[in-house]
Amino acid sequence: MQHSSLSPSAELAAFAAALRYEDIPADVVARAEDLFVDWVGSALAGKGARPVEAIAAFARAMGPTDGPCEVLIDRTSTNPLMAALVNGAASHFAEQDDVHNGSVFHPAAVVFPAALAVAQANQASGRDFIVAATAGYEVGIRVGEFLGRSHYKIFHTTGTAGALAAAAAVGRLLNVDAEQMLHAFGSAGTQAAGLWEFLRDAADSKPLHTGKAAANGLIAAYLAKEGFTGARQILEGMQGMAAGMSSDADPTRLKVGLGTRWALAETSFKLHASCRHTHPAADALLKAMTENNLSIDQIGSVTALVHQGAIDVLGPVVDPATVHQAKFSIGTTLGLIAAFGRAGMNEFEQGYARPDVVAFRKRVAMQLDEEVNTVYPERWIGKVKVETSDGRQIEARVDEPKGDPGNTLSRSEIDAKVSGLAAFSGALSEVEIGATLSRLWGITEANRIGRLIPTPAKKLIRAPTTIGTAKRAPMQYGRE
Amino acid sequence: MQHSSLSPSAELAAFAAALRYEDIPADVVARAEDLFVDWVGSALAGKGARPVEAIAAFARAMGPTDGPCEVLIDRTSTNPLMAALVNGAASHFAEQDDVHNGSVFHPAAVVFPAALAVAQANQASGRDFIVAATAGYEVGIRVGEFLGRSHYKIFHTTGTAGALAAAAAVGRLLNVDAEQMLHAFGSAGTQAAGLWEFLRDAADSKPLHTGKAAANGLIAAYLAKEGFTGARQILEGMQGMAAGMSSDADPTRLKVGLGTRWALAETSFKLHASCRHTHPAADALLKAMTENNLSIDQIGSVTALVHQGAIDVLGPVVDPATVHQAKFSIGTTLGLIAAFGRAGMNEFEQGYARPDVVAFRKRVAMQLDEEVNTVYPERWIGKVKVETSDGRQIEARVDEPKGDPGNTLSRSEIDAKVSGLAAFSGALSEVEIGATLSRLWGITEANRIGRLIPTPAKKLIRAPTTIGTAKRAPMQYGRE
Repeated sequence: MQHSSLSPSAELAAFAAALRYEDIPADVVARAEDLFVDWVGSALAGKGARPVEAIAAFARAMGPTDGPCEVLIDRTSTNPLMAALVNGAASHFAEQDDVHNGSVFHPAAVVFPAALAVAQANQASGRDFIVAATAGYEVGIRVGEFLGRSHYKIFHTTGTAGALAAAAAVGRLLNVDAEQMLHAFGSAGTQAAGLWEFLRDAADSKPLHTGKAAANGLIAAYLAKEGFTGARQILEGMQGMAAGMSSDADPTRLKVGLGTRWALAETSFKLHASCRHTHPAADALLKAMTENNLSIDQIGSVTALVHQGAIDVLGPVVDPATVHQAKFSIGTTLGLIAAFGRAGMNEFEQGYARPDVVAFRKRVAMQLDEEVNTVYPERWIGKVKVETSDGRQIEARVDEPKGDPGNTLSRSEIDAKVSGLAAFSGALSEVEIGATLSRLWGITEANRIGRLIPTPAKKLIRAPTTIGTAKRAPMQYGRE
Repeated sequence: MQHSSLSPSAELAAFAAALRYEDIPADVVARAEDLFVDWVGSALAGKGARPVEAIAAFARAMGPTDGPCEVLIDRTSTNPLMAALVNGAASHFAEQDDVHNGSVFHPAAVVFPAALAVAQANQASGRDFIVAATAGYEVGIRVGEFLGRSHYKIFHTTGTAGALAAAAAVGRLLNVDAEQMLHAFGSAGTQAAGLWEFLRDAADSKPLHTGKAAANGLIAAYLAKEGFTGARQILEGMQGMAAGMSSDADPTRLKVGLGTRWALAETSFKLHASCRHTHPAADALLKAMTENNLSIDQIGSVTALVHQGAIDVLGPVVDPATVHQAKFSIGTTLGLIAAFGRAGMNEFEQGYARPDVVAFRKRVAMQLDEEVNTVYPERWIGKVKVETSDGRQIEARVDEPKGDPGNTLSRSEIDAKVSGLAAFSGALSEVEIGATLSRLWGITEANRIGRLIPTPAKKLIRAPTTIGTAKRAPMQYGRE
């Protein structure tokens, strides 16, 4: 392959098509496993969420109602397309899925749903699955970086770049060649969509974006395998994605360090179930409390020293009215940390309106910090100043928030997170959580990717699965 | 409904949700029937086309392989989603589907596939089907006009506006209310995609755009019916479609003449199987030949007097190498008119390289005409100057090309066009064409929309249905 004569798109496609297990360093494989297990937690956490259940109900109504692919939230079986759609939607609802800082892109929510569906359909090996997922991460992150900040202002990069990420993963599993991979990129890019406008109304679009990105990328790769052609420069061409949807796109970013820089390993886990901008201060407060053996009632006030972006996003949220809004409240997040030592799904659900947390929230302020602001977004430094009830001044600092590559989650921390998410949504029983986790951690050595959840669904489910208006019969298209 | 307080999006949604059969003038209903029958011809014409067959094979591989919805090119049955996808893709391949000049939008290829699938699934009445299709046309055309010329430079408006058009049609069939229709628009708009970049490589994306627009709009409407919310101002909002994909969008165009102006009736049929820019001159030449009783060998040379856009698009095509490229050759198109009196699918396929047509092509020139250019694109005047072999100078002019609203196709001309397209692709036998056409023309009075093609497929098919590389087994996802 003469890479020098290839366009950036073609170079990226050639890389994705040729990637082999042997090419990937062992620590990157291990991180891919971590990200995979972490993803399953996010996918399970979507169970019971109204928008996710609406998409799942649509998939069940359309069918097929059997097939080789697993829908994690309801354990139904279907074809690769619908499994990718539903698992993709489920993955992004709880806001606990991974994120790559530089590209502002959530790879897991689009890559794993597509890759898992096709791996199950084709009985791929665990190694092939990991290779495919890695190809998806490397492609999607670079496409997100390429599309740039101007793109992200209007477009949900996880939706747009996500289609190419999913196409890369599925293309690799289907063993497409470099030429076909480029066509898959073309067909994925010309389907790429996702607008932030829904945020204004707190509408349900976000999981639709991830589900559709996974499904659209899958379509693109299957079609490419069958000889369907796409634009060769869908990213950088004169009427391509950047031309239409970015003003600061940089094609060289598509090929930075292919085969040497592993963007997958730069991906961050989210520990707290809140906006990422709250995490550095949350970790710093936890450190202050641990080092000084403080309880919530010993804290008089907290000043979070933050970057400007945190003030822009979190500043307006002074009196959160819903669980989801509370995840964008720095005061609530720090209050949950102070009250529970953690700010997970359960803490937000049960604690965001608790009087002690509300009272704590009102004692939290943000202050722009020059050092923190200067190094952002390459580094997310957390700093807090705590004044104790008895008048002491305490400062604490973390150089990387928990979950970033230099302060990553251990496997037992991932286990705890996944267990918590599965229990929160009621997707798995206690017994099932253990059995599923042990299966998940063995993914790379599996001869064939089978079902992730060992047992069929039982009626032990906590979260309601009704959708839409309560009195409607299940959606069906045969009679209306 | 207090329209005055609604956003343009909401006003359009309210119109689409409330549209009733009684609201639509009889001549508009009749035109909707014409456009429907014309569309079936285009959908059948896609049979055997490699890109279309690749999408159909994908749909069959994914399944379900039975269901209430008809895939016209192979007469298989499936669910609404996959039927909309395949019929949508098939409709846009032959470049014979209808077009609305002002919005540069092809309504039939996205509206009818979605509406037919859902009408068949829900056993809707013919009147409900016509109402839904009309809603789709009215919405899609206005969205295309709203998005403007700047959008069309990069984006394939039929792909983007098409998702909203399909959502409107399906939403109406599902009896969504105005609020749900607005949410359907939101979910459709946030999935809207389609880039012109594929033109640079003559890649296969065009039918993918229409198929996906139909399918995506359908998803949006089904989800809205289930309570799934979308952005309320996906079109005109600060992070909506226009913000991301247009620089000359005009929100007032979304609501121009709702209920009084019927954009559906402004839609043009395409008679010749070539680029629309060739049609005015083709019609003028035909007129010159008919009025003067000329045959091809009596014509020395032809000068087509055209608008600048025709020169821009057709000018570079001097020596067409393929059937598809020949459709953008003014000389070939006029040569086929001269040789056959028509320039349909068969004439292009069999005649574009014929020595007399090639020789004629070289005797055709284009010349910018001030009058023609000034009134374009509101009017497409056709003018030619013919010099006969014996030295006479003949001029001819048509004020509207055949197929435009003022010079529309008669029902017998539509019958002939549909018959020709179905025979060309081998989708229907002679006997089936007659039986199908009589069923199609009765659509409005049907109590329930059933299958359009009366008989199951037989092995009388002319066009090959193999796809991709010839030696591959049919696509399947179970084993690879």
